[in-house]
Amino acid sequence: MASESLQPSANGGPRVLVAGASGFTGALAAHLLWRHPDFELVMLTARSQPGRRLDELYPRYRVPLPLQELDLDRAAEAADAAIVAYPHAAAAPTVAALRERGLRVVDLSADYRLSSLASYEHWYGEHPRPELMAEAVYGLTELHRDEIASATLIANPGCYPTASLLALAPLARAGLIADVVIDAKQGISGAGRVFDESTHLSMAGENIVPYKVAAHRHTPEIEEQLALVGAPGLRVQFQAHLVAIDQGEQVSCYVTPARALARDELRELYTDAYSREPFVEVVDGPPGVREVRETNFCRVFATFDEHTGKVLAFSSIDNLWKGTSSQALQNLNLMFGLAETRGLL
Amino acid sequence: MASESLQPSANGGPRVLVAGASGFTGALAAHLLWRHPDFELVMLTARSQPGRRLDELYPRYRVPLPLQELDLDRAAEAADAAIVAYPHAAAAPTVAALRERGLRVVDLSADYRLSSLASYEHWYGEHPRPELMAEAVYGLTELHRDEIASATLIANPGCYPTASLLALAPLARAGLIADVVIDAKQGISGAGRVFDESTHLSMAGENIVPYKVAAHRHTPEIEEQLALVGAPGLRVQFQAHLVAIDQGEQVSCYVTPARALARDELRELYTDAYSREPFVEVVDGPPGVREVRETNFCRVFATFDEHTGKVLAFSSIDNLWKGTSSQALQNLNLMFGLAETRGLL
Amino acid sequence: MASESLQPSANGGPRVLVAGASGFTGALAAHLLWRHPDFELVMLTARSQPGRRLDELYPRYRVPLPLQELDLDRAAEAADAAIVAYPHAAAAPTVAALRERGLRVVDLSADYRLSSLASYEHWYGEHPRPELMAEAVYGLTELHRDEIASATLIANPGCYPTASLLALAPLARAGLIADVVIDAKQGISGAGRVFDESTHLSMAGENIVPYKVAAHRHTPEIEEQLALVGAPGLRVQFQAHLVAIDQGEQVSCYVTPARALARDELRELYTDAYSREPFVEVVDGPPGVREVRETNFCRVFATFDEHTGKVLAFSSIDNLWKGTSSQALQNLNLMFGLAETRGLL
Amino acid sequence: MASESLQPSANGGPRVLVAGASGFTGALAAHLLWRHPDFELVMLTARSQPGRRLDELYPRYRVPLPLQELDLDRAAEAADAAIVAYPHAAAAPTVAALRERGLRVVDLSADYRLSSLASYEHWYGEHPRPELMAEAVYGLTELHRDEIASATLIANPGCYPTASLLALAPLARAGLIADVVIDAKQGISGAGRVFDESTHLSMAGENIVPYKVAAHRHTPEIEEQLALVGAPGLRVQFQAHLVAIDQGEQVSCYVTPARALARDELRELYTDAYSREPFVEVVDGPPGVREVRETNFCRVFATFDEHTGKVLAFSSIDNLWKGTSSQALQNLNLMFGLAETRGLL
Repeated sequence: MASESLQPSANGGPRVLVAGASGFTGALAAHLLWRHPDFELVMLTARSQPGRRLDELYPRYRVPLPLQELDLDRAAEAADAAIVAYPHAAAAPTVAALRERGLRVVDLSADYRLSSLASYEHWYGEHPRPELMAEAVYGLTELHRDEIASATLIANPGCYPTASLLALAPLARAGLIADVVIDAKQGISGAGRVFDESTHLSMAGENIVPYKVAAHRHTPEIEEQLALVGAPGLRVQFQAHLVAIDQGEQVSCYVTPARALARDELRELYTDAYSREPFVEVVDGPPGVREVRETNFCRVFATFDEHTGKVLAFSSIDNLWKGTSSQALQNLNLMFGLAETRGLL
Repeated sequence: MASESLQPSANGGPRVLVAGASGFTGALAAHLLWRHPDFELVMLTARSQPGRRLDELYPRYRVPLPLQELDLDRAAEAADAAIVAYPHAAAAPTVAALRERGLRVVDLSADYRLSSLASYEHWYGEHPRPELMAEAVYGLTELHRDEIASATLIANPGCYPTASLLALAPLARAGLIADVVIDAKQGISGAGRVFDESTHLSMAGENIVPYKVAAHRHTPEIEEQLALVGAPGLRVQFQAHLVAIDQGEQVSCYVTPARALARDELRELYTDAYSREPFVEVVDGPPGVREVRETNFCRVFATFDEHTGKVLAFSSIDNLWKGTSSQALQNLNLMFGLAETRGLL
Repeated sequence: MASESLQPSANGGPRVLVAGASGFTGALAAHLLWRHPDFELVMLTARSQPGRRLDELYPRYRVPLPLQELDLDRAAEAADAAIVAYPHAAAAPTVAALRERGLRVVDLSADYRLSSLASYEHWYGEHPRPELMAEAVYGLTELHRDEIASATLIANPGCYPTASLLALAPLARAGLIADVVIDAKQGISGAGRVFDESTHLSMAGENIVPYKVAAHRHTPEIEEQLALVGAPGLRVQFQAHLVAIDQGEQVSCYVTPARALARDELRELYTDAYSREPFVEVVDGPPGVREVRETNFCRVFATFDEHTGKVLAFSSIDNLWKGTSSQALQNLNLMFGLAETRGLL
Repeated sequence: MASESLQPSANGGPRVLVAGASGFTGALAAHLLWRHPDFELVMLTARSQPGRRLDELYPRYRVPLPLQELDLDRAAEAADAAIVAYPHAAAAPTVAALRERGLRVVDLSADYRLSSLASYEHWYGEHPRPELMAEAVYGLTELHRDEIASATLIANPGCYPTASLLALAPLARAGLIADVVIDAKQGISGAGRVFDESTHLSMAGENIVPYKVAAHRHTPEIEEQLALVGAPGLRVQFQAHLVAIDQGEQVSCYVTPARALARDELRELYTDAYSREPFVEVVDGPPGVREVRETNFCRVFATFDEHTGKVLAFSSIDNLWKGTSSQALQNLNLMFGLAETRGLL
């Protein structure tokens, strides 16, 4: 099968490689590409475990391709696009090298999510390839659909910003957020293929624990995007929690609104915002993560609390799917002129 | 064994019955009494399943006593005190009847937690026996230790108020809370021995879901106690979430402080408040529920977020233990002049 | 949408209804039909909860059709085939009524799995409609593919027999089974939408427990099919266990072989048996249920233990998928001349 | 606190150290010693993480002692006995060194469980200190109580042999086992503090998987003990499975009996065997692991299957407790003349 990977696409569709396919998000991206009716998955790379087939590491995903070390020239010959699933800071050089060779790239890391270099360096240290920052489009599909369609480099959002922004965007756009607390909970898969106390079933199981208190890297990403939408200068209180489930992410937002809001007005605000969105479902009560597991859907619910005068906005996604890999496919669909929902329903 | 239950205590210690022993909290209270060195567990009652032994329903608790229908006169003869584990509104008449017969009572329901009858009736409907409200002492041991020692009727706190109040009391006492959002997460055992979609492993498993949005009955209980401590008139934003674990409750509090606070000052505030508390542990980072599972401990951590100017206070308890049944024992210890920690370490 | 359900198929493919769609297996069958490229899901029926939409009960399945009470004449007008997901004994009358009206039926219950009426009545009591027993074809696709293609009534296998028979069929066919012990483990979803101690997360969680000791109804089904394949007269020791996971079923078979077998010979036996099977994967080590979760695949591994002289055969399936609902689709595909894998990969 | 550890026991009871206290079983042994009314836990050693306190690694166990590197002379001065929780082969040299210095030792490893050196070397490789094999007593309390009371070196049984032998001993003693298949299932804690695919919640979760097929090291241990009890020459078919729970081990034994047995006779056989055992409970149906979680109890149930003529024997334990660490305490109690149940009820 490896030899096939250098051939033109069998089905004539865009040829895609996944760099970093041994991790949770890269492997899922490979799975979604493998079963996609139009894309052809042509190559999987991973720094660890070269030679092993992905279906040995992730039997359930049933992708019978071998993991290879990344050879940039072979990659350029084999593929039209790449999904890069590397850790922060490690991604940028590979993203840049693939871009130089003409591949369109969806970067799952944080390297190109922020527009401010200073902000990046504050949170992540020196940026290896800042010159591509201007080119990158932030890949929250629902907020930047038009730019994504013509983009060559997508900075795929973090899972926490995805859920938070979809919960808050309608309020931000209407200028209604005076203050906001975001309390986010995520399953253990969010820690990735990391082997330590935080992921051992007998240590992480039956637990709920906050982490990265008062210092979560996703805060600037959320603030920057909210500012773009219509809430400039907001200081977001964001707190993440790890919960003993596998996949799933739930976000509860407590908004001090700029003015009082009737529940009907809220409902209309959210319905208007999302009625034409194929992957955002506005529902009548707070959505659980089980409702969206292993889908690209985000469910959103907002209401007004008369007792406190606050607006409560809730959302739930699958952190590995809409939070990362299926959203990458959603963006890739747009980049290649395909229907946004292709291969995702 | 049933016949023994009418005899004077074999070990000479106070004789206790549990009314409503077939539910999760009543059964745990029975377990804790059974292994307690001083109390004698003399009787278990339950409206359902009379005749069955508790160790058939809850083998792990190993309490070999039968469940009986409650006979008030036999109860009065057999016991010096009772733990009543009935649902809200159903508890009050039994509590009153036991009190009339001279038993000291720890009531696990909400029936006597609020001092305002109007507030009770707003949230729970008509109160069956309001005349006992004046007698009841709110049983959050750390806040009301002295009154508990001489009390005849304890309104044992809800698990959410327990975790929330222990997280917030030092701030409230110092007059530092201008506004607060409480985001609480709890395992499925919090739903009790209820059999429906919310507890079925294949429906509640792998889920995180908010519930009782903008309408949680624990809000007035938290507000009333915070007012007593030093934060009158506060409107608390409280939101509960059900998480797919068994036991455990984690609370994250987002406080807009009345003034800026240094982290050291916060640390000192909490250490001062709890250094002599046998069951409250002030820790250096956000505590997970696994750290306190099946214990009477509450772990607390507070810090200041310079980015937002908010104070973050976290706590974790076991909802069935410190959240309910072991706190009942902590109170019972005090009511009978025993060391507060007796049977709980 | 209900009104549409009486129209001819929009896509021209066979029109299918699911009777008993509110349970786990019926709901999954509806989900698989809804996303199937050729079948049209035209009607959902359920005795409980009429009027509710399936996507309220099972949001994740995203089937926006209402549950109706079963009207046989409307059903006959609307559908070409039915999947009946009723309990044992309740199924037969409905199956018969649908057959009388000309629908092809896949029955998920045990009512038509056994060829011996005496055996049925021993295990299940009186048979409501025994006259259809002769017509029914046992729907373990891999064993009865040809008869299934021309069948009008399929008795879909139980999940335990499915996993057990796929593990043992190659040995049985070769006349190699002198004695066999089958130890089977299954997740809580196997208990279905039943609300009691056996499914409550706080009671069924963190548990492993054998059930139906020395009396499992699946034994005669396994024995009868093994006899058909080539192991007549075998008395199968079958033991089921409930395990605190959601979906998944694992079977370990301990076979006293009629003669010693080399590991290579075993490997060849299984490879020969299954190399052309689209949904049976012969693997190199014991398969876990996670490898087949939410797929129609069965994984099988067999080896010889020189220490004891026994053959060990292992298999794993998803009890709701290959164990029930996706196998029903596999059969329905064959019954309507479609590729067996259609809609299932 | 470290300095205290060299002092004579504060309560005058035997002073015990735990070597290898950072792993799951060593840490639990430390917890049980810490709360034991008679033993004094004087020292914790661990090769990794010296200087850290055990309650940082395992907060819930609440043992506030530091982990030290093992200094044999200081150990000999500080302690009367040691529990050694090292991996196989690594344990023997330390066990021998502690014995040379006069400490009584309970060894949790397999190094001294087998009486045959050849058998040990077949399964584990060269034995570092075989000369102590003759001294060691196999620490399944219920089988070797008298020898344990006077022993200086206990080879604490493996968890699988513990559950298997307690299920089978009454049958073996009566000469009733002609053949036996043991199918054992265990939670993830059985893998210990090992960080890899087999313990990651997102990879080990929702799984059931057999492991070590036809090659489990516990087989000779079970066979040797069964031979001692009365079943010489038996070839045991033993198969282990890993199940996605935390703690718990369930064993199902399928016995071909030497002769037919009535259910009453079986019941009597087991009742006679265990009626005076404080930690073995003969029950009326197959016991789940939840019934014995975090206890030193073993529950046993046996019955006769008329359909197959086989005897079915089931047992359940907590693999970390009766399977390892609480059984070590049970033995230590006996070695120091204490009541066997001391500190364990």
